[in-house]
Amino acid sequence: MKISELSRCTGVALPTIKYYIRAEILPPGVRRSATQADYGPEHVRRLRLIRTLVEIGDLSLASIARILAVVDDPSISVHEMLGVAHGALAPEATSHDDDGIEQAVQEVMGFIEQLGWRVEASTPAVHQLAHALVTLRGLGWEVTSEVFAPYVDAADRIAEWELDQLPATSDRADLVEGVVIGTVVFETVLVAWRRLAEQRQSEARTAAIRPSGSSPPTSA
Amino acid sequence: MKISELSRCTGVALPTIKYYIRAEILPPGVRRSATQADYGPEHVRRLRLIRTLVEIGDLSLASIARILAVVDDPSISVHEMLGVAHGALAPEATSHDDDGIEQAVQEVMGFIEQLGWRVEASTPAVHQLAHALVTLRGLGWEVTSEVFAPYVDAADRIAEWELDQLPATSDRADLVEGVVIGTVVFETVLVAWRRLAEQRQSEARTAAIRPSGSSPPTSA
Repeated sequence: MKISELSRCTGVALPTIKYYIRAEILPPGVRRSATQADYGPEHVRRLRLIRTLVEIGDLSLASIARILAVVDDPSISVHEMLGVAHGALAPEATSHDDDGIEQAVQEVMGFIEQLGWRVEASTPAVHQLAHALVTLRGLGWEVTSEVFAPYVDAADRIAEWELDQLPATSDRADLVEGVVIGTVVFETVLVAWRRLAEQRQSEARTAAIRPSGSSPPTSA
Repeated sequence: MKISELSRCTGVALPTIKYYIRAEILPPGVRRSATQADYGPEHVRRLRLIRTLVEIGDLSLASIARILAVVDDPSISVHEMLGVAHGALAPEATSHDDDGIEQAVQEVMGFIEQLGWRVEASTPAVHQLAHALVTLRGLGWEVTSEVFAPYVDAADRIAEWELDQLPATSDRADLVEGVVIGTVVFETVLVAWRRLAEQRQSEARTAAIRPSGSSPPTSA
């Protein structure tokens, strides 16, 4: 199909498609003449993947390019792909108080080893957990890595269900889409449900935890 | 204490403190003379809260100001405060395909009603879930709101545990800190554990789902 048809069939504006081709995250069409190129289903699929990463994942073009480079490398396993998708989604590591973080990483790794999970200390998620520990302690909360326990079971059940949803196919493009989309979209789903559940639980308890009468604010 | 002591005791640089005062998210100290003002424990606490929102929540000053305005309003309940914290954390609503979203919101609300949860359709989390449904369908996944079922139980258990952690106090400042910090920090904790669990489950299955031999990439 022509590029104008590709635009109509995906709902992505023509200038945006051309921009993605220049940025080398969408392969160019097959040249038919000096002014025309031909686009196929693989372009439709790639555009859908890019738009999802932009709209739901709120990812930069640089992050998307990093994910797609892995997606297109046949020597990289689906498991490794998941790691790359996570890396692109993880917030930039802020390196405040390096000593404290380094020690907290050791604590988190110790906790993970007790679970019997094999995880590299360099995994972004490990750094996020260490950062959370350091932050909570800085706020005066006396927490150990045991504070993570309730999250482990919940996350493990969710992950098991999610991986069950991966298409039972050996088609790499299908698997890739499943892994990347699953990581990005279902993360927002989990976060949204936690918020709804917090609001529901909080509402049920409001009467109990609300200070009797309206006490004056304590700020200066 | 003097502003220089406030800086030392919180680790926040002097120009940053002055910036927060000008931005009216940190109350000014009590004037002692033309050049000196006095700062107390409430300033230390407020600075800790602001730094957590900046560092972990990655929030803009505008979002922080919105949260703090609610925190400082004694007529607003702790439950409402949670809603505001969630609103500030939620991504900007992208309004692509308004019709589809509107219908998906109805579906999500129907699912939530079946759960017996009381939730407003205007809640940002409801919009996020509707957006996820529309995105998945746009990608050709045939999903109904039943796809959310595994997340509901996990999220509800997590939320129950989290609210149990709120300090058993009627001191409003303590509660506020518990609610806001809990929302921001433990969201990153849950997301990090989901990623670790996905990696662990994926690794265990890699042999099974990896295409036999390395099939060539399907992209053009």
